[in-house]
Amino acid sequence: MNRTQLIEQIKRKKSFLCVGLDPDLKKLPKHILREPDAIFEFNKRLIDATAPYAVAYKPNIAFYEALGPRGWNSLQRTLGYIPKDCFTIADAKRGDIGNTSSLYAQAFFDKGSSGMSFDSITVAPYMGRDSVIPFLEFKDKWVILLALTSNEGSVDFQTMMMNPKLSRNDDDDFGLSNSQVVLDNENEYLFERVIRVSQQWGGNDRLMYVVGATQAPMLQQIRKLAPEHFLLIPGVGAQGGSLEEVCKYGMTKECGLLVNASRSIIYASSGIDFAQKAGEEAKRMQQEMEQQLQAFKII
Amino acid sequence: MNRTQLIEQIKRKKSFLCVGLDPDLKKLPKHILREPDAIFEFNKRLIDATAPYAVAYKPNIAFYEALGPRGWNSLQRTLGYIPKDCFTIADAKRGDIGNTSSLYAQAFFDKGSSGMSFDSITVAPYMGRDSVIPFLEFKDKWVILLALTSNEGSVDFQTMMMNPKLSRNDDDDFGLSNSQVVLDNENEYLFERVIRVSQQWGGNDRLMYVVGATQAPMLQQIRKLAPEHFLLIPGVGAQGGSLEEVCKYGMTKECGLLVNASRSIIYASSGIDFAQKAGEEAKRMQQEMEQQLQAFKII
Repeated sequence: MNRTQLIEQIKRKKSFLCVGLDPDLKKLPKHILREPDAIFEFNKRLIDATAPYAVAYKPNIAFYEALGPRGWNSLQRTLGYIPKDCFTIADAKRGDIGNTSSLYAQAFFDKGSSGMSFDSITVAPYMGRDSVIPFLEFKDKWVILLALTSNEGSVDFQTMMMNPKLSRNDDDDFGLSNSQVVLDNENEYLFERVIRVSQQWGGNDRLMYVVGATQAPMLQQIRKLAPEHFLLIPGVGAQGGSLEEVCKYGMTKECGLLVNASRSIIYASSGIDFAQKAGEEAKRMQQEMEQQLQAFKII
Repeated sequence: MNRTQLIEQIKRKKSFLCVGLDPDLKKLPKHILREPDAIFEFNKRLIDATAPYAVAYKPNIAFYEALGPRGWNSLQRTLGYIPKDCFTIADAKRGDIGNTSSLYAQAFFDKGSSGMSFDSITVAPYMGRDSVIPFLEFKDKWVILLALTSNEGSVDFQTMMMNPKLSRNDDDDFGLSNSQVVLDNENEYLFERVIRVSQQWGGNDRLMYVVGATQAPMLQQIRKLAPEHFLLIPGVGAQGGSLEEVCKYGMTKECGLLVNASRSIIYASSGIDFAQKAGEEAKRMQQEMEQQLQAFKII
């Protein structure tokens, strides 16, 4: 799905909701566990109930991979069941050196090889350009690069301030950086550098960024670096981020947001009515989103 | 396998060779492609030929994942075939927020869940502490954290100089760092920060680091930060790193190195003699390693 089609879907459904399909066997309703492929059955009913309100679905691959080959079968079936007008995200957080990233791209983009073809994949930036570019070589497929995540550990590295011109004027400086110490506005957080540098690898029609909803005030700064890119925003709902704040700081004239909710939707009830309750929660979020889209005159 | 056992194996086999099992269908010998599970057959014969010379095996998960569920079956069978006295590394470069990293840990460490139990997994550090710690909660299992990789893109972020005390005295500073600009030896490269900070999460009996052989002179500096940790060193062989340099700068009194070779061993020949040639190349590397272990008085 390309950028134009994604924006069309957002306007048509009056929603920028992404539903996270993260089926944890420990949390599945008991009656579903009796099914031969419980993971797929759970997802199928969630998709049926939420599809009118969601523009995207995002299976987090860990939940499937934890189950070995049968988990991958459930993932394949789930992807096959997602309606074609929905954007699909393999939340895999992959990344490896060039020739290996090509194989990860095959795993998630090339149906002929792996049996699956998602619209996009989340990628970790640590290894740099040649770990990301192989994913961008697939036509109409997207990379969603981790930038500023919603978890506690995001402060360990992502929000460290760096300056490419700093050096250590001692024997430990291996000539990796310039020798002159310059302190000016070239200071930047690691996540800002990720956003800035990665734009050399692909345009806003192929590249999105992950920014946690718990980091909403940062969105203002991120919009200076990436004014038109789509952002995938997890952390609204169970993790406590606010939709209103996310829109205030992050919405563009074409929306530019995909807001993900997983637990608050898929575990809205643990009973026989889980799908109905999931649909109700998705509808509630869609209605909030519709108000925002109207307020920003997008619809 | 714990640290003591790993060191014992290195002394017993007079080798710190890790063989990368990265089977690419495009490169497999033609006669192997006729087998029903060609990937497993290829690995099986490589393992038979190289086991006397290797202390570790490292399947890069991308090569299996690219093939969908059948690739995961081949991986399971391969892991089952690796002799119990060899250290096993799932080169998966995973990492996600806490509850999700637990599931990735399950995928590679918990045989009851996924059918596989590796000794270790490679992890990407970008998301910080809660993306790494869940892997350390499995007894006698190891995290091998990406630090300084061998690829071109390693300069994009890993070798950027940072300083936690830098700030941007302007409105864009969100209070993430201290306000006072201090320039002293707290300047550090991102990869150095990864090595330093991660030692708060686990000791050298549970944590190793990936350092590319093409970065050999850096090993000297890395040994100041991690004097006793095992390092997993890819990039000797096809990528051009030198074993002698790696030992010169990186070897400890307990060896402290696992040097990986993939392509130079597994594709030593593309003919019917591929396993024999792989064994010969593994033996050649083991002999070089034996000399180094003797020179450093480890054996």
